[in-house]
Amino acid sequence: MIGDFVVHATAGAARHATFSTAHGEVATPCFMPVGTLADVKLLEPRDLHELNARIVLANTYHLWLRPGRETLVAAGGLHRFMAWDGPILTDSGGYQVFSLESRREIDDDGVTFRSHLDGSKHRFTPENVVAFQEDLGVDVAMAFDECVKLPSSRKDVERAVTRTTAWAQRCAAAWRRGPTMLFGIVQGGLDEDLRAQSSAELVALDLPGYAIGGLSVGESRAEMDRVARFTAALLPANKPRYLMGVGTVRDLVAGIDRGIDLFDCVYPTRSGRHGRALTRSGIEYNVRNAGCVRDFGPLDPACDCRVCATYTKAYIAHLFRSGELLAQRLISYHNVAALTSLVRDARAAIDGGRWKAFRDALLASASP
Amino acid sequence: MIGDFVVHATAGAARHATFSTAHGEVATPCFMPVGTLADVKLLEPRDLHELNARIVLANTYHLWLRPGRETLVAAGGLHRFMAWDGPILTDSGGYQVFSLESRREIDDDGVTFRSHLDGSKHRFTPENVVAFQEDLGVDVAMAFDECVKLPSSRKDVERAVTRTTAWAQRCAAAWRRGPTMLFGIVQGGLDEDLRAQSSAELVALDLPGYAIGGLSVGESRAEMDRVARFTAALLPANKPRYLMGVGTVRDLVAGIDRGIDLFDCVYPTRSGRHGRALTRSGIEYNVRNAGCVRDFGPLDPACDCRVCATYTKAYIAHLFRSGELLAQRLISYHNVAALTSLVRDARAAIDGGRWKAFRDALLASASP
Repeated sequence: MIGDFVVHATAGAARHATFSTAHGEVATPCFMPVGTLADVKLLEPRDLHELNARIVLANTYHLWLRPGRETLVAAGGLHRFMAWDGPILTDSGGYQVFSLESRREIDDDGVTFRSHLDGSKHRFTPENVVAFQEDLGVDVAMAFDECVKLPSSRKDVERAVTRTTAWAQRCAAAWRRGPTMLFGIVQGGLDEDLRAQSSAELVALDLPGYAIGGLSVGESRAEMDRVARFTAALLPANKPRYLMGVGTVRDLVAGIDRGIDLFDCVYPTRSGRHGRALTRSGIEYNVRNAGCVRDFGPLDPACDCRVCATYTKAYIAHLFRSGELLAQRLISYHNVAALTSLVRDARAAIDGGRWKAFRDALLASASP
Repeated sequence: MIGDFVVHATAGAARHATFSTAHGEVATPCFMPVGTLADVKLLEPRDLHELNARIVLANTYHLWLRPGRETLVAAGGLHRFMAWDGPILTDSGGYQVFSLESRREIDDDGVTFRSHLDGSKHRFTPENVVAFQEDLGVDVAMAFDECVKLPSSRKDVERAVTRTTAWAQRCAAAWRRGPTMLFGIVQGGLDEDLRAQSSAELVALDLPGYAIGGLSVGESRAEMDRVARFTAALLPANKPRYLMGVGTVRDLVAGIDRGIDLFDCVYPTRSGRHGRALTRSGIEYNVRNAGCVRDFGPLDPACDCRVCATYTKAYIAHLFRSGELLAQRLISYHNVAALTSLVRDARAAIDGGRWKAFRDALLASASP
């Protein structure tokens, strides 16, 4: 049933679970590739299926502006529009509109902002952001939240927590409780008492899942780790926990260890477009390195993806040096494979009682 | 056997044939996608197989400079380097080095030129250009020719014809007659007597195939058509004829009608990267057109390619407007399908006694 979250095995806070959506089951821990504009850059849905990327992210702010609600509804929803039949999670656009800074005005009812594309004026409210995501037919809609940059004053963080709770309540009231699930987003900056307050107020709404927001926005990795660990423990054990905007191999492993189930990040595709390849041991290297030119092995000998089975590092390095966009596609493909394999192996390690050894090996080898 | 050219059916000068290479048979008329730098831009070998693109082009000049002979030989040849197991034809680099103008010096023995990448000095001779292509293990090597821009003086065209013949003789003498076939390239500008001289001198070498070079370099379509028709008739009927750098739907149809068997052009992939899609009736349109935004049909309703079976025009238009590189990949894929389907249907029309009707319908509908 939609929203079911069944835990199969645990290792400390880490757990292997299955999360049910209207477009199928998602094994967690899970890494979700980012498809902001209704595509994961340079990859097709067929690629994503091959990569075992079970659920993808898209973004309310960007899709609201282009192609817009009418086109997406006329297309038959976001799944049909982007030709992806697996689950989709959309971010609420909160993070994006708050990033607009001079182009937006916040009031207690919502946010008025100008499009970064053409300067046109738009307004987000908790109600219309939830309705938009439901109209698109996505599997998981995120509540509209206020995300503050770090560092911020205690007063600003307090205000964001209060507003995020009030808006989450309005999102929950507006939510149609159909096939689209609604997740809450915990804010609270780096203050444990504010994180505790935000968590408690959102958990009271009994939503199908909860995200930890407001991290990976300027703080140190140690601070992020402390707050994510603290907050994850306050979220219900019987619902998925999602750490937004994270991350690298190191961050994924640390997150899984704290009991996080879902992750998203542009990291593998953005790195790929910049010629940086990831290995299964979490090491990142640039294919521009001189050593790649005559290396006729794959991007990562430990990888079982189609790109590693087909192409050599020398070939991809040649394409990248030559400015051929195909290189960006091939490295992006492999990098997503690196993270979807990582979470697959993490699930197996949790099942097999090997989680701690698996975690420690990766934390020892992964790039900082 | 390598080099066999078996004609199955004809319609006037047009013919459906099979041409045998070390990497399999090629049904002609055939359109060859261009993979200058050892990749067809944004497409993988898997895509090319799906697209029935039986043979691809690569370029001696570009591969000589990067990654260079040593890397390509160490990789096990060009096929293994680019992970393509079908036939490959390489252009000899003649066209490219002559385009360098201020960066090259021609003498009767060869051409000394500076790399457009780093200014380094290199020298092409008929012998080393053939050896390079053979070392790469390609299926068809092109002879080293002198290609003049049009318009050129009669004297310049005469000199190019004389030199092209002398160099073709040296190419033929150097050619190892192994799995790599050698094709000659007819020059002669727009002068029928020089085209006749060039054809006769090259045909005397009894090479496995002949190309018509020095066209699509600045002359009008009527001039190109006249010279190609005149020259094609002078080339052996029992060997493949290749019209270099051509072309559009209209040019392919006209070329097939003159008895041309092989074509190559960057047209479908370059158009695709610029958002221009081709239809089966030869019409070209830009996905930026306002009408595409809410068109939930495929790029071409008459097309049976995977992109048309999967994605709507509205989706691809959205991606293109959003600057997503995936749009360039999808349109390139479809455009190659448009041309490989065209030649497939041309073969069937020749077999079925419908060639003239097929030709006339396309010449009436295709974009100018």
